[in-house]
Amino acid sequence: MANNKKMVEAITSRDVDFAKWYTDIVKKAELVDYSGVKGFMVIRPYGYAIWENIQADMDRRFKETDHENVYMPLLIPESLLQKEKDHVEGFAPEVAWVTYGGSEKLNERLCIRPTSETLFCEHYAKIVNTYRDLPKLYNQWCNVVRWEKTTRPFLRTSEFLWQEGHTLHETPEQAQEETLRMLQVYEDFYRDTLAIPAIVGQKTEKEKFAGAEATYTIEPMMYNGVALQGGTTHYFGDGFCKSFDIKFTGRDNKQHYPHQTSWGVSTRMLGAIIMVHGDDDGLILPPKIAPVQVAIVPIAQHKEGVLAKAAELKAQLSADFRVKLDDSDNSPGWKFSQYEMKGVPLRLEVGPKDIENGQCVLVRRDTREKITVPFENLQTEVARLLAELHDGLLARAKANLESKVFVAKNYDEFIDTAANRPGFIRAMWCGDSACEDKIKNETGGVKSRCIPFEEEKHSDNCVCCGNPAKHEVYWGKQY
Amino acid sequence: MANNKKMVEAITSRDVDFAKWYTDIVKKAELVDYSGVKGFMVIRPYGYAIWENIQADMDRRFKETDHENVYMPLLIPESLLQKEKDHVEGFAPEVAWVTYGGSEKLNERLCIRPTSETLFCEHYAKIVNTYRDLPKLYNQWCNVVRWEKTTRPFLRTSEFLWQEGHTLHETPEQAQEETLRMLQVYEDFYRDTLAIPAIVGQKTEKEKFAGAEATYTIEPMMYNGVALQGGTTHYFGDGFCKSFDIKFTGRDNKQHYPHQTSWGVSTRMLGAIIMVHGDDDGLILPPKIAPVQVAIVPIAQHKEGVLAKAAELKAQLSADFRVKLDDSDNSPGWKFSQYEMKGVPLRLEVGPKDIENGQCVLVRRDTREKITVPFENLQTEVARLLAELHDGLLARAKANLESKVFVAKNYDEFIDTAANRPGFIRAMWCGDSACEDKIKNETGGVKSRCIPFEEEKHSDNCVCCGNPAKHEVYWGKQY
Repeated sequence: MANNKKMVEAITSRDVDFAKWYTDIVKKAELVDYSGVKGFMVIRPYGYAIWENIQADMDRRFKETDHENVYMPLLIPESLLQKEKDHVEGFAPEVAWVTYGGSEKLNERLCIRPTSETLFCEHYAKIVNTYRDLPKLYNQWCNVVRWEKTTRPFLRTSEFLWQEGHTLHETPEQAQEETLRMLQVYEDFYRDTLAIPAIVGQKTEKEKFAGAEATYTIEPMMYNGVALQGGTTHYFGDGFCKSFDIKFTGRDNKQHYPHQTSWGVSTRMLGAIIMVHGDDDGLILPPKIAPVQVAIVPIAQHKEGVLAKAAELKAQLSADFRVKLDDSDNSPGWKFSQYEMKGVPLRLEVGPKDIENGQCVLVRRDTREKITVPFENLQTEVARLLAELHDGLLARAKANLESKVFVAKNYDEFIDTAANRPGFIRAMWCGDSACEDKIKNETGGVKSRCIPFEEEKHSDNCVCCGNPAKHEVYWGKQY
Repeated sequence: MANNKKMVEAITSRDVDFAKWYTDIVKKAELVDYSGVKGFMVIRPYGYAIWENIQADMDRRFKETDHENVYMPLLIPESLLQKEKDHVEGFAPEVAWVTYGGSEKLNERLCIRPTSETLFCEHYAKIVNTYRDLPKLYNQWCNVVRWEKTTRPFLRTSEFLWQEGHTLHETPEQAQEETLRMLQVYEDFYRDTLAIPAIVGQKTEKEKFAGAEATYTIEPMMYNGVALQGGTTHYFGDGFCKSFDIKFTGRDNKQHYPHQTSWGVSTRMLGAIIMVHGDDDGLILPPKIAPVQVAIVPIAQHKEGVLAKAAELKAQLSADFRVKLDDSDNSPGWKFSQYEMKGVPLRLEVGPKDIENGQCVLVRRDTREKITVPFENLQTEVARLLAELHDGLLARAKANLESKVFVAKNYDEFIDTAANRPGFIRAMWCGDSACEDKIKNETGGVKSRCIPFEEEKHSDNCVCCGNPAKHEVYWGKQY
């Protein structure tokens, strides 16, 4: 186990330095590499395989809810970006501008899409004519660029990969329904696929998306008590449609503006997976998106029959699971710590004695529990353990989330909690963004995360200014 | 059939104006829309669904040959692009330059990747240390930008989607083998999935990729006798590795440079599908990548039992095929021409009489053949007809290709063929690029397509200059 120990020591403990622990993991688990341009990352095969599994699962959910994929251009003319006033104000400061094509200076600057509302609107204006053309339920998987000053792999990068849904509807009700439907799809995905529980709710005016009437958010809680905006859905009303002159002939034979939504999640989810589930030995991947679900490590593999049996088990398990057999020259101890670092949910050990006894050993990544399994039960045991592991991760994450939710009834309590107990603070709010600014300034960055769908009343007054409260708000620091 | 006629008349005949016919199809089959930036296209749901099917099939082939997907940054610093001399000369004139991030002017210009050799090299330099790290078999699916002056949807666009494989190997032989292996994967994919036959061979010095030692190409022939570069694979030797200082400790414990390849195909393939298979009624899609393989059109759908039966057939067929049931209010005639325009391989008609007789009618898109099929045989008949349709498309495309290959033994024959018989011209060549230039200038654009793997000798002398011939070359105009 010397090798094992050595590798484990190389990672900073997450309780000592969470930021360093995070960086250690993304590098040592070979998820990303840095590129020559700050904030632009190389997503390595292991990291990209996680993203591919995420994409496949989400894409299925989008198609089940009748969405179609499209591809919009990478570049947006400056004049097009400017068509919706709030939108351009929100995004212009953080876009990358293309000014030359080859050796020729362009007549008009083009920005690399930071998001594609304007492009979808330009297209929709051409293809929507009557109510029969609605709804339009489009989604795209693509890269976007937002020029960030402080960057961290997955969490905040100048380029990231994401999906952006953009839909048009006949009525405001239908668009609002879509906005909440997709929030539900996100919540289901986080819980059922990533084993990540979260708070969901509505963003305040100050925190909503540039150009939206309402923004909804899913906010998972990291191990260290910092929140992360895990995905957002936006209801636009008909604001963009008016700016872009998108009209349809309604059932009443009159002209109307459609009502619009957009919604997106990104490679930031990989950051959430790391920070919710990982431990001091490395990643722990939820089985449904793990590129390798079972790592087979042969013991005493030079002995007759061991590698043959290991290969047989691999072939057998591969019918139902993603399996890797590591028959390299590295020691079993090295392999153990390697697959722990990479967060592989189950390790399968098989050696000469096991073979004699007609069994092998399964080891859970999360609990380290060792389970001896007769070969004839292997398929069902692996399925059972992967399901249990998913449930175990979800329960642990839920316990962490719940242990990090605090109620503050007055400003002193709020300030004290913000300073000493990382997590969500539930507190009343008057509805004024001045209080959000004050809180942010006096707590080193605590912001409103969301107004939960089911509010509780902790007092009658705003925790900050004392004026009558309008809403309960979840507050917290964020990545 | 009035409706049917009306729609068909709206398309230009391909024998009258092939370019107009092409543009009509991409618009009327709803494959693309133009965007506000010239050369940047919107790929609409139907077009993107074809691309998704192409991706899924190719990605499986790449993974079966042990390749892993990664994601490299969108932007390349100018200094990085300049590291390999031939490469920067080839690409610098056609890249888009980012000069501002938000409101700040950048210290160094960044180009949007026209291809990612330099980014892969920068990354490989960091992760390759010993022969144990080789081979590296990476691929990425992404968008790239090359600033084009004359653009046409799918065929030549300033932004396109593609895959680019980039691999490193211990020996030149292994890299050369990979270069030819991936060309074979492309050829298999074109033939077995797209039903498109092609000429394969090596590019001349003049036509090879910027920075490559050798470029191989697959060249399908369009209906009108114009060729299209359908995909290329490149052998780089160790040129880039030297420029980027990528070294590994070999089995001999000495330092070596790896040997490199790259290979790519793009959304241009959709252009080939249109121009190889389409006819005057619209698209004809090869069944394996058709978003809808069977379109069910109920006849007299207001009559009792018709829609129920159509829905039952849809449910039954959906287990094995991609099926759409069109129960809209449009007339059957309108639907017939709609699904012909969209190139759906099979139409299924079912009406009250059919139901009485326990049967339905299948209509092939390519031959218009009508086949009456008892319900109990439907599943196997659809499978059989889709397979036959694939084979039929391939045979027809092969006949077109073969009818458009001409041999020219002297320059007069060459010039006459180039002027009067669109297609490939097989003719001998001395190896001098001056002859390529001369031919191109005197024929309005005929270029060397490739040196075929199995050359035939038509004479001892170059068709252009009369000097001793080194190779047989396929010549032709290209998209």
